[in-house]
Order: sequence, then structure tokens, then C-alpha cells
Amino acid sequence: MRGALTAFLATLVAGVMAIAYAQDIKSDRSIKYRQGALTTMSWQFGMLGAMAKGERPYNKDEAIKRASYVAELSKLPWEGFGPGTDQGAPTKAKPEVWKEPAKFKDLQDKLMAETAKLEMVAKTGDEAAFKAQVGATGKACGNCHDDFRAK
Amino acid sequence: MRGALTAFLATLVAGVMAIAYAQDIKSDRSIKYRQGALTTMSWQFGMLGAMAKGERPYNKDEAIKRASYVAELSKLPWEGFGPGTDQGAPTKAKPEVWKEPAKFKDLQDKLMAETAKLEMVAKTGDEAAFKAQVGATGKACGNCHDDFRAK
Repeated sequence: MRGALTAFLATLVAGVMAIAYAQDIKSDRSIKYRQGALTTMSWQFGMLGAMAKGERPYNKDEAIKRASYVAELSKLPWEGFGPGTDQGAPTKAKPEVWKEPAKFKDLQDKLMAETAKLEMVAKTGDEAAFKAQVGATGKACGNCHDDFRAK
Repeated sequence: MRGALTAFLATLVAGVMAIAYAQDIKSDRSIKYRQGALTTMSWQFGMLGAMAKGERPYNKDEAIKRASYVAELSKLPWEGFGPGTDQGAPTKAKPEVWKEPAKFKDLQDKLMAETAKLEMVAKTGDEAAFKAQVGATGKACGNCHDDFRAK
């Protein structure tokens, strides 16, 4: 009887450990995925920021290309913030991401709207409008960081 | 005279250090950018791989969406392998990246051709063709890793 109980408990522990391990792997990969997507977007957007600030020469074709990358990239990170991905690898995501999903979603939608507009404005070749829209897009990044990313 | 020489040397050393620092920051950012882009692509492609292996249910719309992400992402990492970015942050990129640029470029082009084809095939809704093309795309990833990424 005790042997059977021990065997049962050992199986149970092994099962729980396997689930925890799988969860951990998944969470770890999700965190790295979302950080990768955000880093990629930030780097491409940084090039547009440099252009808007005059640190890099304005070039319409380059602006269009990078704005289209940023618009596409802005759709990606959110899938990496699934349930249980608040831990598993070092992350600056605040608990608010999972506590205030509607607010988080709203700020994602606003960012995607601004990046879509950025791509549209880049295509017009209107340099002043492009620079203004780089500012508006950067603000949308910052609005989300303020509440959902730790310093 | 000695005072002037000392001042000159101090300025020179400060200048060289400033250049080295700027180079390092830039290199560090490029390395993190390319790793971010590759991680993002790999995660999205992993979802398609799971679909092709039957670990995730085949869904035409999801396949199209992820294949379009992968096709777009496959254009991005290469800009992060600029001159001087062989060091500056931990990297698995082999010295061959900078020693054999034509071969490296050729494998990038082949990957981009396969991911473009993957997006096209996903849109047909032909599940068998899609699975075969996931395999061909994965092979294009591996071909480059074999020669240009350390284990």
C-alpha cells in the first residue's frame, strides 16, 4: 500500500515538474520573442527618428521602406504577452500587462494606428508631415512604456 | 614642451576612446537588432513548423498571416551584420560572415526567395504544398546556420 502510494506520488511529482518545465520553456520563448520583436521595431524606428531629427539625411524611399517595416513589426510583439509569460526570463513587463489587458490592448491599437499612418505619410514624400508623424509614433511607444514597462 | 605633448596625447587618447565607445555602442545595438529580428522570424516560423508537423492544427488564414510575417522578417536581419559588428556583444556569428560576404549574401537571397514562395504557397490553401515549402524554407535557414553560425 505504501509502495503504491509512493509510486503514485512520484508519478504526480514528475507530472507536475514536466508541466512546470514545459510552461517555463514556453514562457521563456515568448518573452524572448516579444523582446526580439520590440528590439527590431525599435531599431528600425530609431533610423526614422534619426532622419526626423536631421541626424540622418531624409530619403523618401528609405523612409517608406523602414516605415513599412515598423508598421508590420508593430503587429507582432503582443502575441508574446500570453498568460503565464509574466515570468520565465528577465523581463521589464510590469504586472499591469496582465492586470489591465483592456488598457494594454488599447495602447497596442493606438500604436498600430500611428505606425500605419506613418507608412502612409512616408509615401506622400511630405518631409515635414513625416517628421511630425515620427513624433506622434514615438509618443505612442512612450505612452505604453510609461504604464507597462519598468524603468 | 613636455606639458604640450602630454596634453596632446591626453586629447588623442580621449578621442580614440570616444570613437571606440561609439563604435562599441553601435556594434552592440546592431548585434541585438539582428538577434532580435532572427528570434522573431524563428518564433513565427516555428508556429508554421508546428503546423507542418501536425503539432498545431493547419489553418489557412493563420498560415498566410504567419508566412507573410516570415517573408517580411527575412529581409531584416542582414543590415545588422555591418562592418565591425563581429564583436561588441555576445554573438554566434562566425568570422566567415565578414570573410565570405558573397556567399553569405547568396544564402540570404535564397532564404528570402523561399519565404516569398512560402507566403505564395500558403495563399493557395494547398496544405501538402504548404508543408513541403515549410520544409524547404527550414532547409534554407539551416544552410546558412551551417556555415555562418557557431553551434
